Amino acid sequence: MLKPEILDPQGQAVQRALPRLGFEGISDVRQGKRFELEVEGPVDDAALARIREMAETFLANTVIEDFVVRVDEPAGATS
Amino acid sequence: MLKPEILDPQGQAVQRALPRLGFEGISDVRQGKRFELEVEGPVDDAALARIREMAETFLANTVIEDFVVRVDEPAGATS
Repeated sequence: MLKPEILDPQGQAVQRALPRLGFEGISDVRQGKRFELEVEGPVDDAALARIREMAETFLANTVIEDFVVRVDEPAGATS
Repeated sequence: MLKPEILDPQGQAVQRALPRLGFEGISDVRQGKRFELEVEGPVDDAALARIREMAETFLANTVIEDFVVRVDEPAGATS
């Protein structure tokens, strides 16, 4: 996501369009990117550290963007 | 996110670049969009239903995209 101090014209356009489309009660909209990475093997601390490095070095532009790494179970996982 | 059956050239480009950059062990990358909506008042079932309708009617293109609505506490929330 763009850092809070960075203007987000796309999000602002969405926010301005909402009341016109009948949706009230949304005070802010920010638009960002999302990457889904499928990891081979276990998602342990080492894998997470590598993924954070990946995000920092080239998935995100950390001059203007923040990022969060979140682990999701694959659909249909049994454990 | 793009539906699984829809080609994602951006994600593929990222995936192909990873080994070249020294990151191994990622079997798939998909790139998508993410919107952060700040809601006035409680995020109850009615608010969530409205947000789902918003996502379906104009934040996502449901012909080619799936979407998930997730509730996050605001940073610094006390409850």
